[in-house]
Amino acid sequence: MTSFPTSLGTSDADSISLLGQDLAHDLMGKVSFGELAFWLLTQRRPTSGETRVFEAVLIGLADHGFTPTAIAARLTYLSAPDAVQGAVAAGLLGGGSRFLGVTEDTGSFLGEALAEAAAAGTADAASALPEIDDAAAWDAIALRAVTSRRDAGRFVPGLGHPVHKTGDPRTPRLIGIDREEGLFGAHLALFEAIGRVHEGVLGKRLPLNGAGVSGAALADLGLPPELLRATVLLARCAGLIGHIAEEMRRPVANSIYLTVDRNARYVEPGSASAE
Amino acid sequence: MTSFPTSLGTSDADSISLLGQDLAHDLMGKVSFGELAFWLLTQRRPTSGETRVFEAVLIGLADHGFTPTAIAARLTYLSAPDAVQGAVAAGLLGGGSRFLGVTEDTGSFLGEALAEAAAAGTADAASALPEIDDAAAWDAIALRAVTSRRDAGRFVPGLGHPVHKTGDPRTPRLIGIDREEGLFGAHLALFEAIGRVHEGVLGKRLPLNGAGVSGAALADLGLPPELLRATVLLARCAGLIGHIAEEMRRPVANSIYLTVDRNARYVEPGSASAE
Amino acid sequence: MTSFPTSLGTSDADSISLLGQDLAHDLMGKVSFGELAFWLLTQRRPTSGETRVFEAVLIGLADHGFTPTAIAARLTYLSAPDAVQGAVAAGLLGGGSRFLGVTEDTGSFLGEALAEAAAAGTADAASALPEIDDAAAWDAIALRAVTSRRDAGRFVPGLGHPVHKTGDPRTPRLIGIDREEGLFGAHLALFEAIGRVHEGVLGKRLPLNGAGVSGAALADLGLPPELLRATVLLARCAGLIGHIAEEMRRPVANSIYLTVDRNARYVEPGSASAE
Amino acid sequence: MTSFPTSLGTSDADSISLLGQDLAHDLMGKVSFGELAFWLLTQRRPTSGETRVFEAVLIGLADHGFTPTAIAARLTYLSAPDAVQGAVAAGLLGGGSRFLGVTEDTGSFLGEALAEAAAAGTADAASALPEIDDAAAWDAIALRAVTSRRDAGRFVPGLGHPVHKTGDPRTPRLIGIDREEGLFGAHLALFEAIGRVHEGVLGKRLPLNGAGVSGAALADLGLPPELLRATVLLARCAGLIGHIAEEMRRPVANSIYLTVDRNARYVEPGSASAE
Repeated sequence: MTSFPTSLGTSDADSISLLGQDLAHDLMGKVSFGELAFWLLTQRRPTSGETRVFEAVLIGLADHGFTPTAIAARLTYLSAPDAVQGAVAAGLLGGGSRFLGVTEDTGSFLGEALAEAAAAGTADAASALPEIDDAAAWDAIALRAVTSRRDAGRFVPGLGHPVHKTGDPRTPRLIGIDREEGLFGAHLALFEAIGRVHEGVLGKRLPLNGAGVSGAALADLGLPPELLRATVLLARCAGLIGHIAEEMRRPVANSIYLTVDRNARYVEPGSASAE
Repeated sequence: MTSFPTSLGTSDADSISLLGQDLAHDLMGKVSFGELAFWLLTQRRPTSGETRVFEAVLIGLADHGFTPTAIAARLTYLSAPDAVQGAVAAGLLGGGSRFLGVTEDTGSFLGEALAEAAAAGTADAASALPEIDDAAAWDAIALRAVTSRRDAGRFVPGLGHPVHKTGDPRTPRLIGIDREEGLFGAHLALFEAIGRVHEGVLGKRLPLNGAGVSGAALADLGLPPELLRATVLLARCAGLIGHIAEEMRRPVANSIYLTVDRNARYVEPGSASAE
Repeated sequence: MTSFPTSLGTSDADSISLLGQDLAHDLMGKVSFGELAFWLLTQRRPTSGETRVFEAVLIGLADHGFTPTAIAARLTYLSAPDAVQGAVAAGLLGGGSRFLGVTEDTGSFLGEALAEAAAAGTADAASALPEIDDAAAWDAIALRAVTSRRDAGRFVPGLGHPVHKTGDPRTPRLIGIDREEGLFGAHLALFEAIGRVHEGVLGKRLPLNGAGVSGAALADLGLPPELLRATVLLARCAGLIGHIAEEMRRPVANSIYLTVDRNARYVEPGSASAE
Repeated sequence: MTSFPTSLGTSDADSISLLGQDLAHDLMGKVSFGELAFWLLTQRRPTSGETRVFEAVLIGLADHGFTPTAIAARLTYLSAPDAVQGAVAAGLLGGGSRFLGVTEDTGSFLGEALAEAAAAGTADAASALPEIDDAAAWDAIALRAVTSRRDAGRFVPGLGHPVHKTGDPRTPRLIGIDREEGLFGAHLALFEAIGRVHEGVLGKRLPLNGAGVSGAALADLGLPPELLRATVLLARCAGLIGHIAEEMRRPVANSIYLTVDRNARYVEPGSASAE
């Protein structure tokens, strides 16, 4: 018979184990939920500094008001109030490429640029990447990365924000926390350098956004790009249950529905008169 | 034009506010993710003791190995690896009445029993409910609650466990944390009393399970029953991203699928020869 | 080893079987999709008349414009255009008790009322239920059913509509199709009688709505109440892919999002000044 | 105020319109559900031949027994039997790139190859593409398309099947239906040609699979690639409600869960001893 390996939860009559720890005695009351979440994702216990950075990222991405995902969750709760899990799930399903993808795109982009820089550097240096505070060296790597991305006709992820046009307040704050904890690493160093050099290549000055800096910070914690979207989904899950709880107390979903329905404009199929 | 009120996230060009706080400066790096989640649910900042209890509950409910929800999430990831949000959502959709409902059922049941006891008590006492350590008084309330539930032909929620037949290790641990933090309240007092008296009514001794004690503890934190399932969903979200991360590194979903498919047994429709 | 029985799809190297039929030669090109759906639900092949009624129900329930579920699907597509399955799923998750529950509630209610009438009738009659056209006898059953429902403080499902205040055009049409096909049965007879007698009990005249008549018609086809919601979900799936296809060609989701976001009104947490 | 255009459902007090038709009188009882679904997707009424092909595709893709998506739906129903919509949604969420993506990948691939061939052909021919029965000309186009795909290191979609190694029975059947209806077009002609020539390029003979031929047939009906996954999801929705209905009558999900749980093998986190 096939067996199914796992290192997550297991139990017998008297005890419950999670990640090789005694759930009741070693985890409950002893670690924070964010620490456990990092541990579940990586199967490695984070340090207290890593936990602080990880939780700061989760908090920074938890909620942004009436986003499309929050509205979808509220409308689903309106339709099916007996199945709260469906409302949360509907909200998370908006966690795709367009709004929540920036974090993983930035993590991937930075990781690839670092791998290229390291590969290029190995011939002539003991260390493949610059010292963390050698701004000029990071600027050179950033310039190559932004230029080659632009030349490929692709976006540089992590730049620009529809509201915070001159600066996203999460960016300096997260970098500050990272520095306080001694966890400011190559991904953030490169991301900061991109912030300095991109205007020369792209011809306009854009802020480093919070989703992008989150991707850089998570990558510096050792999270591979494919786990970044999962991290954002956990953050968003907290925001969504906040929206559903608020919807229970002070509902707006029916007003949203009626606003749309009453402003619907019927157009004959095949007609060219749309919009 | 209709407006849509919210107390969650809002932002302008220079700042982001969440729950009336400055997200970057007052929340990121300063509160834990579990603290923020409680705050989002209740729109009230928890004390550090409340946060510790709330996070202990989240941790106790995060993962139980290969549950139906974890398997569903892994199978969905197998089928649609490009849409991790779908795998998380599929797992959460199992968060319904059968396995995850115990927490809210217990919270509701205890709340109703306390309301009845308080209503009965108001005529003859300054305080409607017993002192928290008056075990005999709690036993009397518990006896009435269990008896009337049994008489109505309904389950007493929070009792029994398929694996932990003589005791769920999370139960004494969570009660211990609650007592350490001075947060052991009426719901937990009644739940403990149910543990003492139910055998006399039901004719068998069952353990107080971890999902039930979580419902009691969350109710003592002031969470209404309708928010308990939302809390469990957040806990489970962390477990599910752990399963998906493990599935990425050491996949089992295809083996699960093949195990089922190869042991499928075709039965003619309408035939009586099933199972 | 446990085996897993099924009467649905199975295959070997040369053939594919579904419901005991050769998929390629007996089903593809020979039955309609609606016929197959009924067959999948019941594991019984419908007659052509049953198929016509079943498909009429599916068509009547497929779409109602900008419902909360359609809006949720479009917003999810906006956020995650690379995962169309998530947008369809988000829309279906609104298929809960509030809007889509009427069909199954009506089927259940009529089934219970018929069972009671049959039980009461068996003592004194060869046939437990009236002749299908004995309006007076059906009115008597309807009067008892509506009265006892009202006395229990519960809604009579299938009555009333926010838009079609004097009559839902689907109702006479579906009854007409059922009569044409000789499939007008006890559930529809009782439902029509409820339409005649409810005003005397409830004090107001309400139309028999399309969701309710659909429940009655499906119950007359032999579908048990627990399969009625599944039927509605299939109907709605077609409507949702229509919305997503229209969203691809002529998007409105971003306008919906901006309409909500720009009319958000921030309220301090804990403040009483909401709405 | 922004308005939201749609050509789908709309209604007033006395009538309901869908796609510009009177729902009750022009659609219910007059068109099949599959015909309506095509109409909803394309906003164009299909001919009876197009409807027959479209429904044959839906039927061919509706169910394949215990697929990962069917298992996920059944496990979700086990956990949350009160929310059938969640079980259907969980099943659909597996409708991603890996198993259900073949149909759209094939449609896209064929469409691109035809566009290239037409572009190449316009210089020297009145008609940009060959006569439908000019097998030699189609073989030449197929050879170029397969070769350039192989040279780009990419799969040729629509080839191969894990069970039907020498031929998928749906393929000749669907082509036959298309020919009967006079709807055999350029996409199918090219797909058949790929079946004839690929062995010379790829070095092995693979069958044209049912998902691939479905993509070709839908593309010949004029459906753009981005609507093919939506079509497959509708087909699968019918299969999933069949599984859930069967699960209600003869459950297997708990046995599946126990089979996995009892064969779980705990591995220390970080250990190298996995599978």
